[in-house]
Amino acid sequence: MADVLIFGCGLIGTSVGLALSQSRQTVLLHDESAASLAVAVSRGAGTAWDGRSTAAVVLVAVPPAATGTVLAEAQRLSLGQTYTHVSSVQSVVQADVERLNCDLSFIVGGHPLAGREQSGPEAAEAGLFAGRPWAVCAGPEAAPTAVEAVRELALACGGIPVEVDQALHDRSVALLSHLPQVAASALAGLLAQPGGGASAVRYDLSGPGLVDSTRLAAGDPQLWTQILTANAEHVSPVVRALAGQLIALAEQLEQLDQAQPESALAPARDFISSFLERGKAGRERVPVKRGRGSVDFSTVAVDVDDQPGRLASLLADAGAAGINVEDVHVEHVPGRPRGVIELLVRAESAADLSAALVAARWDVRTMDLSTSR
Amino acid sequence: MADVLIFGCGLIGTSVGLALSQSRQTVLLHDESAASLAVAVSRGAGTAWDGRSTAAVVLVAVPPAATGTVLAEAQRLSLGQTYTHVSSVQSVVQADVERLNCDLSFIVGGHPLAGREQSGPEAAEAGLFAGRPWAVCAGPEAAPTAVEAVRELALACGGIPVEVDQALHDRSVALLSHLPQVAASALAGLLAQPGGGASAVRYDLSGPGLVDSTRLAAGDPQLWTQILTANAEHVSPVVRALAGQLIALAEQLEQLDQAQPESALAPARDFISSFLERGKAGRERVPVKRGRGSVDFSTVAVDVDDQPGRLASLLADAGAAGINVEDVHVEHVPGRPRGVIELLVRAESAADLSAALVAARWDVRTMDLSTSR
Repeated sequence: MADVLIFGCGLIGTSVGLALSQSRQTVLLHDESAASLAVAVSRGAGTAWDGRSTAAVVLVAVPPAATGTVLAEAQRLSLGQTYTHVSSVQSVVQADVERLNCDLSFIVGGHPLAGREQSGPEAAEAGLFAGRPWAVCAGPEAAPTAVEAVRELALACGGIPVEVDQALHDRSVALLSHLPQVAASALAGLLAQPGGGASAVRYDLSGPGLVDSTRLAAGDPQLWTQILTANAEHVSPVVRALAGQLIALAEQLEQLDQAQPESALAPARDFISSFLERGKAGRERVPVKRGRGSVDFSTVAVDVDDQPGRLASLLADAGAAGINVEDVHVEHVPGRPRGVIELLVRAESAADLSAALVAARWDVRTMDLSTSR
Repeated sequence: MADVLIFGCGLIGTSVGLALSQSRQTVLLHDESAASLAVAVSRGAGTAWDGRSTAAVVLVAVPPAATGTVLAEAQRLSLGQTYTHVSSVQSVVQADVERLNCDLSFIVGGHPLAGREQSGPEAAEAGLFAGRPWAVCAGPEAAPTAVEAVRELALACGGIPVEVDQALHDRSVALLSHLPQVAASALAGLLAQPGGGASAVRYDLSGPGLVDSTRLAAGDPQLWTQILTANAEHVSPVVRALAGQLIALAEQLEQLDQAQPESALAPARDFISSFLERGKAGRERVPVKRGRGSVDFSTVAVDVDDQPGRLASLLADAGAAGINVEDVHVEHVPGRPRGVIELLVRAESAADLSAALVAARWDVRTMDLSTSR
């Protein structure tokens, strides 16, 4: 009996095969596409399934809409002891396996929160899941041994198992992953529509904020269509809620736009201020850093010219001072050969870093004492 | 006669004073707050104005609502030849100086697209404007010599003058700067409201996309209340447009959420796909890099452990290979001592960088051949 039998040799299935093969587990692979299967096998993700052999764990890594059917068929053939999948939406799969009268004791959903812009076995990587959350979504009937088997699979792939019930999972990713995608696409979409809400604008008046806010919009539209479709139940209310916040703000802005006595404008200003304060409070709940909020960080900003190796030598000087740089932000300046590099470090290291860089003749800006988390 | 007389010693006014003083211009400073004035003078931004002396350029750097009044008073006293300001919204200032019967020939609006999270003269920096756009917004009556004086002021501060008419400026920043702020605050605001659109969620299921999408929400609510208020005319329609896009999407998601025959779902899926495609097209209009779309970049991703100096030594190895790293993205993994560092380089350098890092025994991921702009 093999350790794992994987149905579906796309990005995720093949990456799981690569990760487990590196952990010296025996992996069997199957895909309806002989070409995809051949690529996955040739990359070392496992060996081709013979159509009969069994495994301790059957992992189904096909699109969400087909996942339940493949799980049911595998269970009907008794191909495994534990059955799991990798759907980014759990409820649709659960509904399918219930409808197909599966034995729910040995089916435990999974969802590695990892991905790439590319798809297919060519894009697979053994390290895709390293250090990333891997949701483990047991239904009420799930046997503890099956839950443990899926946890161990996640760990063997380098992931961090996060046990969470299915509805909470789907609701969480709707807000934390699917809504940011929708917001970025909607915002960027307005830029593509000069005849829409935005008449012609001067793009050279844009700054780094726009870059961050629209980054997710570069993702694969077909992939995201599938995800939003499968999680429509949980995504639609948060999209409505976001739209509702925006409409409420627009209404207050329209109040301000009408010439009114000063006293009549105060409530609108208060509303806008509260709206922004709420956003600031929400931002503080975003787990930006390791330790999630338990550590304060500071930024040290350095003006640099745009010569090869400037960033490297800057960080070498930081490293020589014994300071671990947690993150780097390079500010791009269209058309100009100068920029600003911001180094994020633990708050208690910021003064030391700043002093070390000044000593090394870097053009350090006045230190930013604000902390971010 | 001094070169420049600055009214308002906040972040922007004091930074202009510092930049011009470094350029050996004579700068006079005034502020209603003696304390702010003293800080600005002590930092070397200029000398205190005596209440009578004149200057070639009078720059008003007070909040937008007061800017027109100060301009009018300065002109009434004939304190300068050219009058400018730094309001992030131009139309309100123009309306005020027209109403106050100013001589419009010598008033030319300006707006450096630069700022910090902090405010006040303590936070000022001579390099604040280096390489950043500085909108120069001449009204129809403006004298060419006055426009040229404001362009030269921007250049003397290190900025890039961008001549643009006032309405186009205000409409552009509404879409490119103010709307992203509103979207980030609205999105982050939902995270702060577990009883609102979002019931309790598991924040440990979030990823880097959420971090990018909500970054702007950390900005100063009071500052942004002023900006949104002053540009309400142009911000409200783009906020409405964004909300409209979201509502249209939510309606289609709600269609999908109702169990319907497969054929009835195709139009909804097509809508969602188009929505995402439009976002992808819009993202491509965002000037992310120098050269704005004329150069292709590729990403090389490296798995690293979280030891001090890893980022520095990685970039040192990249620099040793003679490759200029354009940008760095560090992926944070809550609770785990490993991460991924993505290096953005010109597309033609990616293979060389990858090879050099592999040779230096870095754990380089399968190369990402997608280009970003």
